[in-house]
Amino acid sequence: MKINNQHYRSIWPSDTQSSVLIIDQTRLPFEFVVKEIKTLVQMENAITTMQVRGAPLIGASAAYGVALAMCIKTDDAFIEDTCKRLMATRPTAVNLQWALNRMKTKLLAADESKRSTIAWQEAAKICNEDVEQNKAIARHGLAIFNTIFTKKQDQTVLNVLTHCNAGWLATVDIGTALGPIYAFHDAGLPIHVWVDETRPRNQGALLTAWELAQHGVPYTVIADNAGGHLMQQGKVDCCIVGADRIANNGDVCNKIGTYLKALAARDNDIPFYVAAPNNTIDQALASGVQIPIENRSAQEVNCVAGQLESGEIVDVHIMDKKCPVENPAFDVTPNDLVTSIITENGLFIGVGS
Amino acid sequence: MKINNQHYRSIWPSDTQSSVLIIDQTRLPFEFVVKEIKTLVQMENAITTMQVRGAPLIGASAAYGVALAMCIKTDDAFIEDTCKRLMATRPTAVNLQWALNRMKTKLLAADESKRSTIAWQEAAKICNEDVEQNKAIARHGLAIFNTIFTKKQDQTVLNVLTHCNAGWLATVDIGTALGPIYAFHDAGLPIHVWVDETRPRNQGALLTAWELAQHGVPYTVIADNAGGHLMQQGKVDCCIVGADRIANNGDVCNKIGTYLKALAARDNDIPFYVAAPNNTIDQALASGVQIPIENRSAQEVNCVAGQLESGEIVDVHIMDKKCPVENPAFDVTPNDLVTSIITENGLFIGVGS
Repeated sequence: MKINNQHYRSIWPSDTQSSVLIIDQTRLPFEFVVKEIKTLVQMENAITTMQVRGAPLIGASAAYGVALAMCIKTDDAFIEDTCKRLMATRPTAVNLQWALNRMKTKLLAADESKRSTIAWQEAAKICNEDVEQNKAIARHGLAIFNTIFTKKQDQTVLNVLTHCNAGWLATVDIGTALGPIYAFHDAGLPIHVWVDETRPRNQGALLTAWELAQHGVPYTVIADNAGGHLMQQGKVDCCIVGADRIANNGDVCNKIGTYLKALAARDNDIPFYVAAPNNTIDQALASGVQIPIENRSAQEVNCVAGQLESGEIVDVHIMDKKCPVENPAFDVTPNDLVTSIITENGLFIGVGS
Repeated sequence: MKINNQHYRSIWPSDTQSSVLIIDQTRLPFEFVVKEIKTLVQMENAITTMQVRGAPLIGASAAYGVALAMCIKTDDAFIEDTCKRLMATRPTAVNLQWALNRMKTKLLAADESKRSTIAWQEAAKICNEDVEQNKAIARHGLAIFNTIFTKKQDQTVLNVLTHCNAGWLATVDIGTALGPIYAFHDAGLPIHVWVDETRPRNQGALLTAWELAQHGVPYTVIADNAGGHLMQQGKVDCCIVGADRIANNGDVCNKIGTYLKALAARDNDIPFYVAAPNNTIDQALASGVQIPIENRSAQEVNCVAGQLESGEIVDVHIMDKKCPVENPAFDVTPNDLVTSIITENGLFIGVGS
């Protein structure tokens, strides 16, 4: 990921492997703040408050959370307890569970004296693998985009709609849904991205727009309400989104509002792709209806952080404070609305889908 | 409409019929401001800046705009020019055109000396008729709601989802889509309203929530993205929205995002109603694809007015100011997604639908 033309990952260990550095995503795009996470509690807090977010990055962050804990104690009970605490930070993304199980299995099998070293190594490995997986997803997605673009009558530009942020910032680097977009752009081909604002946390307007701007990819921010209309007008060639958990039948759990875009895509014969690493697929889950959906605070809906003309960043209430609010963070898109799920291994065909 | 338990309409003439009083809807819910409109230019500005908004209220406001103009000059050319100027304030709502044509026809046929008096009378008549139409819509809608509620297995509460604001504030009084909701509540029956925030201008969170609270109707504000998920979860019994223009085949143009909710309603076998007076039906229009869709400013998307903890109201940028933005204000819901269009005459059956 390029930030002011310098290469970054979204998470990395300090040189001494005693702390972890993250980009505080709650401050973007107004401020670029690298934050040092020194303890398990700080990492739990970083995940809960969404300083780090995005299913793959949550997994990587949790792995480093375990590594941080191993600097303090390394016994079996402490490992179990650490994983349990990290598991409770976010309920929906399955990558969290996947990364914690991997760390736990590896550490419990190792000699106690080596556990700290192994934990840091394994967390780094999870991060490196994530980057490789995303490169493969980008390659597969690029081939799909090429096919769609070639079939277009008017080949001035490929118009892609995305929801939320499934880019660099949601992963360790490159991104899942944005990976093929960067690959297409880097191949010198013309692409334009419709960026759903993605209420209530506005990850599209804040993070995806910032990422695309940093990389030089043309984009336009739209209200979440606008996507269907743009599809009706022939202004969208395909949709691509990430995923927080995919059931074994191919049902996709992703940011709230994804389902509405998938419905509109089907109604307008527009292909709808989901890009996610294999570890997002929860093979224990027969269908999406069983996925636990996180309900987040009313404050995410009735309050927003914004910048005054002076540059100062303030929190404002955008509705009456007393308004009752419901705030489900994810929804489930049934498999029949999904054209393909792009993983590092190619296309995932759901079982029973 | 009740505001702090006092009865109001959303627009009314001053006692001397030399000015018009409106509720400045850009200040709600944070401030309740009654604004005096003294000139045609002020009325044009009130419509353009959405101090008054909602298709029926735009029509009524335009009629009073003509009445204000008639205080200055009353010749034929001036009437034509006045109507042309008011017609240009908003392109989508057909009620604007309908009200202006009615005013123009009436005035051009009258003796010049009587035109000013007639203009004020006719504007008042348009307002009174709007109230009567809305009462009839509420009655028809109530019957529909009763049927849905009676069929519910669990009759604890009727859950209705609405988008944008089609209530008191969008009309002269009572409302279109909210009319049946008030009628159901006033009949002592249990109702709960899911209020779509309605980005980018948040008319749901700001206006509908405020209206419902003033009337004591239980409601919950949700991000626009959440409606599909709530429908999947069985938490929505029916949807009801207003309309800005309805084509002769029953295609419905309404606030951007309406189409997405209609798609989700169909996917979940939930009835989707549109409530609008007959003058919202544009009989000259064979289908919805021909309806001109207003594109509004980027600022509506990238800026928001909100209240600081101190109570002060400020404008903040909620994304990078330089973000390119597209902001279509309406979309078209094809007739096959609409269960019924409720008008003052009962149900409208589109021609060729």
